[in-house]
Amino acid sequence: MDTSALATSFGARLPDWVAAELAGVPEVLATDEDRIRLVNRLAERNHRENTGGPFAALVVESGTGRLLSAGVNLVLASGLSSTHAEVVALSLAQTRLGAWDLGAPGGPGLELVVNWRPCVMCYGAAMWSGVRRLLLAGDGPEVEALTGFDEGPMREDWVEQFDARGIEIVRGVLRDEAVEVFRAYGERDDAVVYNARGAAAEATASRSA
Amino acid sequence: MDTSALATSFGARLPDWVAAELAGVPEVLATDEDRIRLVNRLAERNHRENTGGPFAALVVESGTGRLLSAGVNLVLASGLSSTHAEVVALSLAQTRLGAWDLGAPGGPGLELVVNWRPCVMCYGAAMWSGVRRLLLAGDGPEVEALTGFDEGPMREDWVEQFDARGIEIVRGVLRDEAVEVFRAYGERDDAVVYNARGAAAEATASRSA
Repeated sequence: MDTSALATSFGARLPDWVAAELAGVPEVLATDEDRIRLVNRLAERNHRENTGGPFAALVVESGTGRLLSAGVNLVLASGLSSTHAEVVALSLAQTRLGAWDLGAPGGPGLELVVNWRPCVMCYGAAMWSGVRRLLLAGDGPEVEALTGFDEGPMREDWVEQFDARGIEIVRGVLRDEAVEVFRAYGERDDAVVYNARGAAAEATASRSA
Repeated sequence: MDTSALATSFGARLPDWVAAELAGVPEVLATDEDRIRLVNRLAERNHRENTGGPFAALVVESGTGRLLSAGVNLVLASGLSSTHAEVVALSLAQTRLGAWDLGAPGGPGLELVVNWRPCVMCYGAAMWSGVRRLLLAGDGPEVEALTGFDEGPMREDWVEQFDARGIEIVRGVLRDEAVEVFRAYGERDDAVVYNARGAAAEATASRSA
């Protein structure tokens, strides 16, 4: 086989506006509210900037509130369907540390902060990353109802499954503000729903035709 | 906040041996067996080369058998916990096409070929990528039993959930050969189980201490 046309590397880069936004944030995100306030703001700006969907994530040292990384959904900017905010934030933290295991013995306890319950892909990505805590603005049907995104088939016992792996879940912090971001996204005429539900719907239509 | 220490990009690169291995493969992978034979071979070599776990994946044009991308698990080589073989193969295909949607209207029908049922993260990654078919050597408890990897909490109706999104599942092709790769990995004294189960076990131990 001629292998010259095969891609051999891939990657993604944060848009410049993220660093500009973070420059105005205090050095330490002391409380859960401080952390969620920041992901809500990044999520709102991400869709306004057309970099990706209304989702953002942080990796933070739980005890000190020190920010290790910030990510936003980059599906549209990077052209990679796996670059959800959680994968971006986890990958940037691992790049900074030079190690895949964010829960390695002797390290600070790290948490993933997200503006809603992760989709099924990011649910797994959080599990495999080594984070010890997952801090969410909220969970529930609002994100799918307001934005049209498919979050995927999650198990009913998703919280217990995290607990069994030593990962604590905290949810319901500035929840209303998070919902407002999804509402604003859903009200846009040009919102892109990029998770292949369109493709699935088309396939269903052609099968039944 | 001082943002100078934050990572702003991440990425992964295939080891050179993958292209060397592919150079000896026919231009077209005509049958399901041809496709699975190649993922089994790449998975075996990946763990022998210590690039990552015993997992490989391809993106192939279902109709023609043309290979669009090949990926292997790169967690150890890249230091990124999300670089499972499926995410790597999907990302390389999207990089080559310059588009996140592998199921865009008018394109060839693309499939993801893997040497076992995806973990919960890659289950979601496959859903969001736009592939229309998932071809697996097999599924079942062997991979966790033989290698020690945690595949995560999947729903019982995982096949139906793919079907509802227009993605066909085919499984049970050269299954025994796939199991042999996992067995060989499990028999190594120095096999690394990199999915943070160690961290979870440690957390559980310290909670009960």
